[in-house]
Amino acid sequence: MSRRLILHEGRFFDPDPRTKEIAMHLYRQVADLPIVSPHGHVDPRMFADPDYSFGSPDELFIIPDHYIFRMLYSQGVKLEDLGIERKDGFPVESDHRKIWQHFAENFYLFRGTPTYIWLEHELHDVFGVDEVPDGEDAQEIFDRIQQRLERPDYRPRRLFERFNIEVLCTTDPATSTLKHHKAIRESGWQGKVLPTFRPDDVIHIDAPGWRKNIDLLSERSGIDITDYRSFTRAIEDRRSFFKSMSARATDMATVSAYTEVLSDREADDIFRRALQGGASEEDAARFTAHMVVESARMSIDDGLVMQWHVGSYRNHNALLFERFGPDMGADIPVATEFTRSLKPLLDRFGNDRRLTLILFTLDESTYARELAPLAGHYPALFLGPPWWFHDSLNGMRRYFDQVMETAGLYNTVGFNDDTRAFPSIPARHDVWRRASSNWLGGLVVRGIIGLEDVEEMAVEMAYTLPKRTYRLA
Amino acid sequence: MSRRLILHEGRFFDPDPRTKEIAMHLYRQVADLPIVSPHGHVDPRMFADPDYSFGSPDELFIIPDHYIFRMLYSQGVKLEDLGIERKDGFPVESDHRKIWQHFAENFYLFRGTPTYIWLEHELHDVFGVDEVPDGEDAQEIFDRIQQRLERPDYRPRRLFERFNIEVLCTTDPATSTLKHHKAIRESGWQGKVLPTFRPDDVIHIDAPGWRKNIDLLSERSGIDITDYRSFTRAIEDRRSFFKSMSARATDMATVSAYTEVLSDREADDIFRRALQGGASEEDAARFTAHMVVESARMSIDDGLVMQWHVGSYRNHNALLFERFGPDMGADIPVATEFTRSLKPLLDRFGNDRRLTLILFTLDESTYARELAPLAGHYPALFLGPPWWFHDSLNGMRRYFDQVMETAGLYNTVGFNDDTRAFPSIPARHDVWRRASSNWLGGLVVRGIIGLEDVEEMAVEMAYTLPKRTYRLA
Amino acid sequence: MSRRLILHEGRFFDPDPRTKEIAMHLYRQVADLPIVSPHGHVDPRMFADPDYSFGSPDELFIIPDHYIFRMLYSQGVKLEDLGIERKDGFPVESDHRKIWQHFAENFYLFRGTPTYIWLEHELHDVFGVDEVPDGEDAQEIFDRIQQRLERPDYRPRRLFERFNIEVLCTTDPATSTLKHHKAIRESGWQGKVLPTFRPDDVIHIDAPGWRKNIDLLSERSGIDITDYRSFTRAIEDRRSFFKSMSARATDMATVSAYTEVLSDREADDIFRRALQGGASEEDAARFTAHMVVESARMSIDDGLVMQWHVGSYRNHNALLFERFGPDMGADIPVATEFTRSLKPLLDRFGNDRRLTLILFTLDESTYARELAPLAGHYPALFLGPPWWFHDSLNGMRRYFDQVMETAGLYNTVGFNDDTRAFPSIPARHDVWRRASSNWLGGLVVRGIIGLEDVEEMAVEMAYTLPKRTYRLA
Repeated sequence: MSRRLILHEGRFFDPDPRTKEIAMHLYRQVADLPIVSPHGHVDPRMFADPDYSFGSPDELFIIPDHYIFRMLYSQGVKLEDLGIERKDGFPVESDHRKIWQHFAENFYLFRGTPTYIWLEHELHDVFGVDEVPDGEDAQEIFDRIQQRLERPDYRPRRLFERFNIEVLCTTDPATSTLKHHKAIRESGWQGKVLPTFRPDDVIHIDAPGWRKNIDLLSERSGIDITDYRSFTRAIEDRRSFFKSMSARATDMATVSAYTEVLSDREADDIFRRALQGGASEEDAARFTAHMVVESARMSIDDGLVMQWHVGSYRNHNALLFERFGPDMGADIPVATEFTRSLKPLLDRFGNDRRLTLILFTLDESTYARELAPLAGHYPALFLGPPWWFHDSLNGMRRYFDQVMETAGLYNTVGFNDDTRAFPSIPARHDVWRRASSNWLGGLVVRGIIGLEDVEEMAVEMAYTLPKRTYRLA
Repeated sequence: MSRRLILHEGRFFDPDPRTKEIAMHLYRQVADLPIVSPHGHVDPRMFADPDYSFGSPDELFIIPDHYIFRMLYSQGVKLEDLGIERKDGFPVESDHRKIWQHFAENFYLFRGTPTYIWLEHELHDVFGVDEVPDGEDAQEIFDRIQQRLERPDYRPRRLFERFNIEVLCTTDPATSTLKHHKAIRESGWQGKVLPTFRPDDVIHIDAPGWRKNIDLLSERSGIDITDYRSFTRAIEDRRSFFKSMSARATDMATVSAYTEVLSDREADDIFRRALQGGASEEDAARFTAHMVVESARMSIDDGLVMQWHVGSYRNHNALLFERFGPDMGADIPVATEFTRSLKPLLDRFGNDRRLTLILFTLDESTYARELAPLAGHYPALFLGPPWWFHDSLNGMRRYFDQVMETAGLYNTVGFNDDTRAFPSIPARHDVWRRASSNWLGGLVVRGIIGLEDVEEMAVEMAYTLPKRTYRLA
Repeated sequence: MSRRLILHEGRFFDPDPRTKEIAMHLYRQVADLPIVSPHGHVDPRMFADPDYSFGSPDELFIIPDHYIFRMLYSQGVKLEDLGIERKDGFPVESDHRKIWQHFAENFYLFRGTPTYIWLEHELHDVFGVDEVPDGEDAQEIFDRIQQRLERPDYRPRRLFERFNIEVLCTTDPATSTLKHHKAIRESGWQGKVLPTFRPDDVIHIDAPGWRKNIDLLSERSGIDITDYRSFTRAIEDRRSFFKSMSARATDMATVSAYTEVLSDREADDIFRRALQGGASEEDAARFTAHMVVESARMSIDDGLVMQWHVGSYRNHNALLFERFGPDMGADIPVATEFTRSLKPLLDRFGNDRRLTLILFTLDESTYARELAPLAGHYPALFLGPPWWFHDSLNGMRRYFDQVMETAGLYNTVGFNDDTRAFPSIPARHDVWRRASSNWLGGLVVRGIIGLEDVEEMAVEMAYTLPKRTYRLA
């Protein structure tokens, strides 16, 4: 017999009765606050088309979610059997029910992981499922979800409203026309879906397809990019366009936190080499390091909040990358150095309050050692929430534990769900709201701070901090 | 008056009553499961000789155990006074009772350490001692243990049975004749004691005595080792011999996790330089890095599980190494990089489910950052339990906390006691079983997972995972 | 209405009733033990002059305390508005009440930080303030503190006695005349205020003003420093002077833990280059690395305990350093390597029990990985308490968690308050005493160790360990 999903009302709180009581008290005050989602990867198309459908359960839950299939893959399930498309067009499983069956039979692999928690919440609250998926009940659950997915109230716009999302920021390449954002605006629908400027494809001169991306950037900006100067003008032009489309922030991702200020001449030399296909690995690293600093400069000019995600070694699995392409659950963190690496950037702009630089790390050893001391000093620097593998109950606890004493709450920015799985958004914010209520409850119970103070802090963490820091008010 | 050992029934569990209750419930289900010990350093001789005796209490507890004497040494007790033999033959303390007295007088130094916990358990459960050793009761305890050690039911084979050990794997050099394992087989005794193939002495070309080890390897394999090709054939031959003697696994230890694939030509050039005594430090590092990858290749061929222990700087104390030799409690961990270092190996074999590669680290900062993401993705990769200094209550808690959310339980392998102190084996597994029951209890109490699920997980952690992963079924 | 400070009697203890009960029991036994403060930065002048006054509240709490103003600065408050003097003499806020108002209005930024805890304790216990400072009650609190500060029982000597300080060690440059220490001695006042020898200004050949410091060292020692040999003689002379003034210890600070033994010739070459202003960055690093080893050698000769603080990147904020000078809250930790770095030093002196080397780190990832194994082995090595950013409730918990199982309690040295804020000393020691009582209570409740044992350990941690290790008995 299938097991029931549990979803206790007081889940994730410490078992100590007084801590739990205060945590619950705080949670109740923030549980129903609107969701502010300042950073994530939801596809804006789903809101542009009022009739957009998520497809079948596997197309919603499995195929697009590398959190899910990486774990199945680690235990020997083939990506082909999960319906993941191959680059060579070799046929993969296309029977939705078979794909779902694989998933359900291996659902136990997620025990104790955040994926389990999100799925449980989503299955129950969004799709009315009460059982833990397993081999036996797989098809029945498939049916139940499929039925819901076909209903009009399961169109993304309706869910957006039901989820009480106040604002959702997407992540969009520098060359995007933002046509979906335009369509949303023009549709008259009131949901606030804002673009975010992400220039990774054009600033990493060693990115696959970079030359083409530059051509596209030329086209989009109407600026013929022939040198470093025209390149930065094109970037500025696109930022300005994004801003006109209500973007509030930019984002970039790099493997290291290295920053460097190149002279215009140096930057131009590298850029020209890149245009001619002759840039070295070192050129690429230095150019990226320079463009990070440039991004800060531009943010001071145009007021866009600057997000920076550091430390992911992308596409670590060569075989999968070749066969399936990027984002196959094989992005692995690396150790990161911030103190020395950020100095060139911070020397230039760290004291400038016009800049809001939000840093994300995958190296938790830097929380207490480097990032909290930096954020607790530099006026321009803020610390993003626990990211990716650390967006979990333990990850949040470690973050609170290691960041807050030194950085202080007010140099952090609340939560980012950072997800492409739109229907999981309420689950993810709920975990954060519970985890932060629990942390604050612990402060009260141990006499570190008073109840009135943590009531304010709970609202800041759930709602006000992201809204204020991302200039979404 | 001497203090009593405590050994509460519910020891090591969280004090929260509900957590404790569930933990105790889980612990009761696994406490008496047979012990599976897939990796350790017990001397097989003790089972080959049915009349093997452990000697006197100091010969059992102190002299062979660097966990013990390192701590006494750190507080100024001389190794000579503990009866540790010097290489120069200079006389050391030989009075067993004096050695024991030093130990007992300094027993308080172990307060709060895992050594204290193991000793307490062992003294009580195996030797019927009720008091905490101190200067006053030292000799009385000595007598009590001595009497037991002389009894026939204190022969290793009898303890093996009493401890309910299902299988015990030893660690044996590539050049071992496995004569003790043969003798065990031939004796008709039913205890399952299996060898493990450890080629460290022959693959680290900078190891002291390497040239002699190669000669011995030639002799044992009957293959004249004159170049890289004959060397690998000899290795393969010995693996095959170990396998015929029921070995299930190999093991290797390196300072760094660096891997590299050399061409046959490069490997051969380095190997020949080594044979002529002209290999550089870099040669040694690259050759080791290459042999790690080779070891994976061979495991795919012969099905031996591959264990790899990374990150110990051996024999850090030059003076002690010179005076007493290796293993004097002076092996110190170093920071380790896995993400980039393992790529050459994983690019070759990480997707091959025929390989089971079990990784051990001494750098806990890599748990959540590198190892859990890697193990949660690559089909061939598993994570070994907390090792050495981290084989402790806090070490296990940190491991559960930092590994499980991302790797998932099923990419870990249960427990290794990794000990040469045979009578401490039940104590060590008991700590793991308690610690894992407690962790699982915490998951239930916080509503993360249901009771039926953790009941299954507890059995996996105590028994099934190591049996399955090490192919011991 | 202003909020009340909370200061529960049982604050900072775990909420579990039994843990709390035992922690409270232990805390009661140590709460009133005399304070031993073996390392800190209190200005000895305040005890030399019997009528020394702390000035106004902002001069006591804000202007000299970079813990305070770094946090205000991080949220956009200008240092000028806090009355921090500029190097260019540009006028800054001088109205004490306005400075205090800024502070009170931003007091909420400290929620959850150790600064909040110390201030709360100090305001309440030392200054009789009951309210949390905020914009509304700021001036009233200012008045209350001001009144106290004017009273004769608020002279530093009176507070020293009231705080029950048994001994307070200051930190003094190698070139100090120790005139304040002399004045204290000669005054007949019985308070024990001892100097500590800190030669950073003369051993870091790349320190600003180094050449002048060497001239001053020549003058103070009466030794004409013209080469490496005369330099070390001068150092030894100063150590001897400090010792004659009752110093018990030395201290040094370096960015890395690198040690190296230079030949006399190499050291002399570098030193001469430095005298001529031609030393390279590498010279400076190697010379420092060498002087660390020399410092150990000298300690063996003269018996001064050797303290070493590793891993702070000083004055990270170039703009603030230029405008305001050093110590502006912009010292940021860097990752540190100890295992390989310390080997040259430990090979020489690690086994010598005459040396007491106390290490401090800002890189917590080294606690369990490197420092606890090293301290749990080498007779000369001890581990200092959690330092700076880690001198906090969570920092202490992590330290106990990660250090004690491997190093054992007896290779640690109790607490250092390390503060220049004299009136905060009782608050800081109180946090340590509570945190250590709580840790020990947890050990008892989980059955790891018995009550009688932890009663002894609590006293060691609060009082005996620092007294014994720093040779203050």
